[in-house]
Amino acid sequence: MGNPTIILASGSAIRADILRSAGVPFEIIKPETDETVIKRAAKDDSAGLEETAMMLAEAKCLNVARQLKADKTDAIVIGSDQIMEFEGRGFDKPANMGEARSRLKTLQGATHSLINAIAVARHGSVIWRNIARPKLTMRPMSDTEIDAYLNAASADILYTVGAYQVEKLGARLFERIEGDYFAVLGLTLYPLLDLLRSEGALEF
Amino acid sequence: MGNPTIILASGSAIRADILRSAGVPFEIIKPETDETVIKRAAKDDSAGLEETAMMLAEAKCLNVARQLKADKTDAIVIGSDQIMEFEGRGFDKPANMGEARSRLKTLQGATHSLINAIAVARHGSVIWRNIARPKLTMRPMSDTEIDAYLNAASADILYTVGAYQVEKLGARLFERIEGDYFAVLGLTLYPLLDLLRSEGALEF
Repeated sequence: MGNPTIILASGSAIRADILRSAGVPFEIIKPETDETVIKRAAKDDSAGLEETAMMLAEAKCLNVARQLKADKTDAIVIGSDQIMEFEGRGFDKPANMGEARSRLKTLQGATHSLINAIAVARHGSVIWRNIARPKLTMRPMSDTEIDAYLNAASADILYTVGAYQVEKLGARLFERIEGDYFAVLGLTLYPLLDLLRSEGALEF
Repeated sequence: MGNPTIILASGSAIRADILRSAGVPFEIIKPETDETVIKRAAKDDSAGLEETAMMLAEAKCLNVARQLKADKTDAIVIGSDQIMEFEGRGFDKPANMGEARSRLKTLQGATHSLINAIAVARHGSVIWRNIARPKLTMRPMSDTEIDAYLNAASADILYTVGAYQVEKLGARLFERIEGDYFAVLGLTLYPLLDLLRSEGALEF
């Protein structure tokens, strides 16, 4: 009987970096969830943005929990989702650079939120949920500045809901961030570490 | 006439990482300041903790600014200092692991501040100053947990004022951080980027 295995149900490089930096041992199993179906269901249910993010986080951790082999049924499975909210509307990842450009034009000089939902499953059901909602204020930027950023940034920004990587060159778009920085990056860390300790998965 | 050179007057690896991640081009010149002398002067002046941190940041950037060769006199020189504050008292880096242990025993289960002062010099005088004061709440920890952390962490924690590296294994000591995460790491980023833009050192 060792510590239970921790599994990150996400293909996100930065979520893995966050756990790795904090010295958390874990494995990665990418969930096979159809996000479109879940988002449509959320819409049909008139789910709010936080509720939708949580539905996605739950679907991811449960999908992986149900695939576990017999030697891993005790594992702790972490699912997470992020939705960008601006003026009451939710935004998903931009489809292409044109969409990224118009996203940044919309967000410059204003405050938006990044909703991070985490759901943790063990023994086939969700045992823990967490929602964080940090607020980010982008500085006012001209179209020329936005284009200079898009030219300098890599296409990896298309994997982010805000069309920026705040931990890289995207730092230069911001004036202020209020709330948990790890929630901004996509995985609210301190409450999750607390859960992992209480499940006996970490020594401290 | 290109952009002015940016010089980081600090030997801190994490301050360099912060600028590098944000895509800021810079050189490093370590200041040759005697911190003990400045701290004694601050004490004699009954300077507060923020004032003391600022005196140190100014001394660092001015020391480097005065060493600049003729081809670099236009450079923008960044000095920074960090002091830990707990219950009104200032704390410097712990001298050894024993001191680190008692520091963590003091801080566990309570809230402390990390004062980050930045001073920027150009053409031989200080042109800009910034103070940030994020608040960090450490979770309650037993002596066993503190020892487990100290055994697992590297001696690099002795280069930090709090006896932890919050960006590494030290994340596991915290419950909550309020304020600028980069100020916690040692270099308040967004206001500094703003200054660098206004001095013509960055395109965006």
